[in-house]
Amino acid sequence: MIFRQLVDIETSTYSYLLGCERTHRAVLIDPVASELDVYINLLQSLNLKLIYTLETHVHADHITGSGLLREKLGSKSVLHRDAGALCADLLVTDGVLLQVGDLELEVRHTPGHTSGCVSYVMADRVFTGDSLLINGSGRTDFQQGDAGKLYDSIINKLFSLPADTLVYPGHDYQGNTVSSIKQEMGKNPRLGHGKSREEFIAIMQELKLAYPKFIDKALPANQSCGLVAE
Amino acid sequence: MIFRQLVDIETSTYSYLLGCERTHRAVLIDPVASELDVYINLLQSLNLKLIYTLETHVHADHITGSGLLREKLGSKSVLHRDAGALCADLLVTDGVLLQVGDLELEVRHTPGHTSGCVSYVMADRVFTGDSLLINGSGRTDFQQGDAGKLYDSIINKLFSLPADTLVYPGHDYQGNTVSSIKQEMGKNPRLGHGKSREEFIAIMQELKLAYPKFIDKALPANQSCGLVAE
Repeated sequence: MIFRQLVDIETSTYSYLLGCERTHRAVLIDPVASELDVYINLLQSLNLKLIYTLETHVHADHITGSGLLREKLGSKSVLHRDAGALCADLLVTDGVLLQVGDLELEVRHTPGHTSGCVSYVMADRVFTGDSLLINGSGRTDFQQGDAGKLYDSIINKLFSLPADTLVYPGHDYQGNTVSSIKQEMGKNPRLGHGKSREEFIAIMQELKLAYPKFIDKALPANQSCGLVAE
Repeated sequence: MIFRQLVDIETSTYSYLLGCERTHRAVLIDPVASELDVYINLLQSLNLKLIYTLETHVHADHITGSGLLREKLGSKSVLHRDAGALCADLLVTDGVLLQVGDLELEVRHTPGHTSGCVSYVMADRVFTGDSLLINGSGRTDFQQGDAGKLYDSIINKLFSLPADTLVYPGHDYQGNTVSSIKQEMGKNPRLGHGKSREEFIAIMQELKLAYPKFIDKALPANQSCGLVAE
């Protein structure tokens, strides 16, 4: 498998390119609109055809590149049915298996950061979007956020994965790129060491985070797969 | 590829089993609820795991087996986004590629019989549901039926396929099991020989068909993937 972790410095967003060497088919997880040329050049240099852009959710902090990639390369945009983005080409739900060449990804519905959040599970790794972050979690104070639901999602849908499953998040603001289920179950300060649901909800309530910088622009744009009227 | 065409005698409905010999994964196109045991035995005897049930549309003439198969085998139900059936696990749109093992199916949106009708295209064959029938077409007098739209769907989305593409319809009432794009372009009395859109609409308007026998039971049931309260 071809695997690249790509970072958008401005918003500390991670995107992921997964390619099948046998069929030359590929997917991009959470592509960022401003990085369009990077993706197109990379796909071309690796001789890959982009089949799907897989969104973990409707983002509030950057504009998705899924609509532009559809226009340029004919790829299809994948989102959870509850994400409320009618622009998506393929709407998925919990447990759906997606195959692209020899790549296999299972959709896990992990609501809490938003109601349409999913994680994409492969044999040895999981892409958790803004549900589970390294030493943290997605915020739950806007966009259908619900700390209790997020706790249930992480405990039941992610911490139930094999302990050595690699965790690839949607962001990191401290320069970490990858973790594992075992590390997060042990050391995540919000959820690790068997923290209770009540403790997690209390922690999330006390965060008092600033209003997200890009939300007023990003949310409406991402409900149209990032295609904004100029 | 393992391929079986299955008929439900009571409603003259064709269902199709497609299996990948390498991965032992399978899909069923338009399964019928009353045939559940047949499918389960067949899958078992062929050592196949059912991944998706692919619906060409929300049927008015029989009850789908997709919900029961999901309960028994964990398969996921696939429907077009416009089909209005919230029970579906995977909602697709025009041009989406679905892969199951080595099976590849491209979704073509072919509205007209209903607004959420699709055909599933493979390399050498197409499953047309109730859009294009052998020597006929789906009716257009209920359930968002629109003769003009159906004409456009068949001409633009199906008659544009390679001429030797096999046509496997959702029904046949004369005992035909398969046709080809070339045969339908030539001999279909409603659309063949270059019949115009206006001619097709006039033919459809004059059919004066009886009210469908099962529609009042089938439609609400199929909006719940065939799972009806007893």
